[in-house]
Amino acid sequence: MNRVVLTIMPQGRALKAEPGTGLLENLRAILGEDFESPCGGAGLCGKCQVMIQCGEIWVSALACQTRVDRNMTVLLPDGSLGQEQILRQGAVSEKYALEPTIRKMLLDTVNRSKAGDGYRSQMDWLVDQVGKVGREKECDPGLARQLADLLQSGSAFITAVVYNDQIVSLEPGDTREILFGMAFDIGTTTLVGYLLNLNTGTRIATVSAMNPQRTYGADVISRVNHTNTLPDGLEQLTKAIRGGVERLIDQAAEMAGLRRTDIYELVFVGNTCMNHLFLGIHPAGLGQAPYKPVLRAPVCCLASSLGLTINSAGFVYWLPNVSGFIGSDTIGALLSNPVDQDETARLVVDIGTNGEMAIGVGGQIWACSTSAGPAFEGACIKNGMRAMPGAIDAVQVVGEDINYHIIGSYEPKGLCGSGLVDAVAGFLKTGVIDITGRFQSDNLTSWPETLKERVVPWQGSHAFILALQEGKGEPIMITQKDIRQVQLAKGAIAAGIEIIVKEAGLRLEEIGELYVAGAFGNYLDKHNMCAIGLLPLALENAIIPVGNAAGEGAVLALLSASARHEAFNIAGRVRYIELAGRSDFQDIFVEAMTFPASMSFDLL
Amino acid sequence: MNRVVLTIMPQGRALKAEPGTGLLENLRAILGEDFESPCGGAGLCGKCQVMIQCGEIWVSALACQTRVDRNMTVLLPDGSLGQEQILRQGAVSEKYALEPTIRKMLLDTVNRSKAGDGYRSQMDWLVDQVGKVGREKECDPGLARQLADLLQSGSAFITAVVYNDQIVSLEPGDTREILFGMAFDIGTTTLVGYLLNLNTGTRIATVSAMNPQRTYGADVISRVNHTNTLPDGLEQLTKAIRGGVERLIDQAAEMAGLRRTDIYELVFVGNTCMNHLFLGIHPAGLGQAPYKPVLRAPVCCLASSLGLTINSAGFVYWLPNVSGFIGSDTIGALLSNPVDQDETARLVVDIGTNGEMAIGVGGQIWACSTSAGPAFEGACIKNGMRAMPGAIDAVQVVGEDINYHIIGSYEPKGLCGSGLVDAVAGFLKTGVIDITGRFQSDNLTSWPETLKERVVPWQGSHAFILALQEGKGEPIMITQKDIRQVQLAKGAIAAGIEIIVKEAGLRLEEIGELYVAGAFGNYLDKHNMCAIGLLPLALENAIIPVGNAAGEGAVLALLSASARHEAFNIAGRVRYIELAGRSDFQDIFVEAMTFPASMSFDLL
Repeated sequence: MNRVVLTIMPQGRALKAEPGTGLLENLRAILGEDFESPCGGAGLCGKCQVMIQCGEIWVSALACQTRVDRNMTVLLPDGSLGQEQILRQGAVSEKYALEPTIRKMLLDTVNRSKAGDGYRSQMDWLVDQVGKVGREKECDPGLARQLADLLQSGSAFITAVVYNDQIVSLEPGDTREILFGMAFDIGTTTLVGYLLNLNTGTRIATVSAMNPQRTYGADVISRVNHTNTLPDGLEQLTKAIRGGVERLIDQAAEMAGLRRTDIYELVFVGNTCMNHLFLGIHPAGLGQAPYKPVLRAPVCCLASSLGLTINSAGFVYWLPNVSGFIGSDTIGALLSNPVDQDETARLVVDIGTNGEMAIGVGGQIWACSTSAGPAFEGACIKNGMRAMPGAIDAVQVVGEDINYHIIGSYEPKGLCGSGLVDAVAGFLKTGVIDITGRFQSDNLTSWPETLKERVVPWQGSHAFILALQEGKGEPIMITQKDIRQVQLAKGAIAAGIEIIVKEAGLRLEEIGELYVAGAFGNYLDKHNMCAIGLLPLALENAIIPVGNAAGEGAVLALLSASARHEAFNIAGRVRYIELAGRSDFQDIFVEAMTFPASMSFDLL
Repeated sequence: MNRVVLTIMPQGRALKAEPGTGLLENLRAILGEDFESPCGGAGLCGKCQVMIQCGEIWVSALACQTRVDRNMTVLLPDGSLGQEQILRQGAVSEKYALEPTIRKMLLDTVNRSKAGDGYRSQMDWLVDQVGKVGREKECDPGLARQLADLLQSGSAFITAVVYNDQIVSLEPGDTREILFGMAFDIGTTTLVGYLLNLNTGTRIATVSAMNPQRTYGADVISRVNHTNTLPDGLEQLTKAIRGGVERLIDQAAEMAGLRRTDIYELVFVGNTCMNHLFLGIHPAGLGQAPYKPVLRAPVCCLASSLGLTINSAGFVYWLPNVSGFIGSDTIGALLSNPVDQDETARLVVDIGTNGEMAIGVGGQIWACSTSAGPAFEGACIKNGMRAMPGAIDAVQVVGEDINYHIIGSYEPKGLCGSGLVDAVAGFLKTGVIDITGRFQSDNLTSWPETLKERVVPWQGSHAFILALQEGKGEPIMITQKDIRQVQLAKGAIAAGIEIIVKEAGLRLEEIGELYVAGAFGNYLDKHNMCAIGLLPLALENAIIPVGNAAGEGAVLALLSASARHEAFNIAGRVRYIELAGRSDFQDIFVEAMTFPASMSFDLL
């Protein structure tokens, strides 16, 4: 059999490998023992995580669990910059033990008949095994059918799949080792999925993709409009998002060498509109006052009932919504980052296409959301892209030089959200733009030559050339329109923060911690976030990046029934602030679109 | 449009009718006001019930609810003999009020939004309507989807379908009038179905058919063997019985002018083997000691999950089993005929292919079942047939004459169970057979001439000619083999009664009431039942015919949630006596096959 080519990035080294050999041993052969695997290749420690290129996207996988079965490009971790920049924490937090809602039990059928149990049916025996007492009030015949068939086939051992202490399925033999689940964050722009081993809590693969609904509109409102305009608009959007999730399941399963049927539960978070669209529930009410959702309760149903092809006994669980604009993604963020457990006020801001923010103190939580647009996710920006290999994710304006950092590559392909924030902060500091956001092209006399050259006319206005792309005609640039997108986005978030802090009866100075969440959260420069007015300067030192907090909440709910229960309780505690209904919101928003003036030249 | 022919039986009159006109008005045109309809054609009183021929079987229907839409043969009620002899009682008993498990509620969507309910979702509003409080712990998305679609379409009224206090479906507009259900008795040989209006408790149609599984074996054990022998044996039997039920649903709906989707629940009783085969559960355990069933609990599932096409939100409910040989049919009989409510001992005997008997006193119930064979249902008897038009259902031997009665017809087509019992009792009285059951052909000297002529040689033994069939070569006869079938059947039942009475610690004289159930129960001559030893002579005066007691129990469970709950409690109180495990059963059985000697010539 022909050998396959294994390409290792960012080093760019290629080697030939025997097909079917382990990725870990191949990497060790080149990199030596520096490539860590503390658990000895058992798939438990997660230290050998790498990114593997699958078509146009990158997925994360454990090298020790991956076989080199075809030509493969692997991206090694590079400090904080080596992977697709979606962050992960420990599998189960300090607060929650590993106790998934779905579990397996081994049953010994050989010794099941006991003397004196003449009144017991085979189902009574089965139900006894999960520790229930008394007679079953009602029974679904499907399970009895499975049990009869397995006993008939003479299986000595049966594995029961137990969900919420109910047996939901039976499998021949001992299949306890096979128990996987996925947690999903369904963003308006980005989908992220985590594949976990539910026996160990280990994260095996992380996959992400753009939300395929984007072709029907960039934000929540335009998608709601699509369902109102076209008779099959809802069906299109539902099909698109479920299809996107199906592809992520495929990719994750393939990377981990699993069958789809090895996956028993999918836990979801997302905003209320994504929740409704995914479930096929018409979201018309979200498009007009009083913005009432159809559904707030958590959803639990068979995955097959939604056309998702995991194990036939597999479930879908959605965390609860709070209101039309506060969805389960906010609940997920609050689950992974509790805010109201004591008298320290904590603010969590999740920066996505919708900016969600929640503030908590002493058992009370307030939340609101604003439509920020997808600028910080790299969408609707001329050279915008997600935080993945090739993206410029950090920019520094030092004197007359522009320095930037590219994720896992030497060739820039575009600009992700953190790079955009840095660049705009740099423009403000250097006076390339003024506090209204306008390019100061009329007033270039004081500029260093190298910066002057970068400002060029562009579609009736101006653009700033950030980097050249080798072999391509057009450079990577930031346009006047891009700046306006940033202003709209940061204005929406800043206005939301101002209002929610006021509603909670607090002053900014009273907030002890500010958790910044979102796919790019960890890589943002705290100072630049405050410099452009996205976050309040008063809280610069309180900022704690927490990564994809919503997705982490979904992971917790997948791994721990207690966490899932707590999510339900959190949803009951949240009071939402409806910004659309407020007379002061528009004023505050417009004001917040202006950049702060104070720092402009201090730091040049 | 051509007129259609309406044939009225037993009168044999035919008339032409306009297609689409009501059956009641056509009957009134011929019969005048003597044809009663006290409720004025509202379908409520059930007085205008007639039988209508559908292919080879007859189904009952209300004339006021039926249209003459094709050539049609109608059988008018003729005292107790006018209809297929499956009996019916009042819709809901004195004990149980009309409170079906499935019900409908009208919801006014226009006034649903109230001030200050900003935290309420549309689903919260819906759940409020059925009187629930608090937040829903989990929600199935299907219902939310329906609600969103109905609100989106602007329905001013929505009808909620509520099952066990859970909303299971929503319908546009006010559909409260449409709420029907069916109760089924799934016998080894005979299927009976009752169609009821769940708003009024009215019985609208009664349908019956042979169990299509008969081609795979006449009794329970041969069907179990079929599933053990052929790989697809279970599938064949399951398909056959579900198909039979589907056809009964079709016929009942057609007669009542309903759509299948107007039917929301099917409640079933049947023996444990029928229960398992219907549900597709392998019954192997029922074929060998310890005769353990897979399932005892009541079954509740969506009808669609079993491939039954009623309303898409419709349910199937099976009453519970007690053991491998005491099924929900016995529970049904005990529900419609309570036996243990006070210190009077009561015995219920259900005579079918399996003979089930239960005895109760002071809160205790004992039950057993014996394999009687299908003789009393007219199967495995040379000229046997069900109790339907054309069947000889009563026979008298008076001096040298044989008198008989034919159900709803002038031409005999065969002999049903009650006619068979009468005939055998007559043979015993006249000495045509002796107490061992053998034809006394060697000893005919004392016989009247007309009886002598009727005994003819037949297949190496003898047969008795009961009636001639006009235009057919062969007469209706009772063969020596038929007599043996009767002996096996009555021996099994008599032995069962003897053992269960002993197990309950009672003497026959202590039994206050003996309920005789079964499709033919009401038409049996009590004296003849005792004369052939089917029932104990000591209890002749305690005999109370109760008709299809099992089916009546299913009807009660369909109409009353309390009755359904009581069925569950009854199943918990029953102690079963396993006859297959008893050393004394065979002896008692063999002895009971002999006919009683005492009365033979007293009554000649």
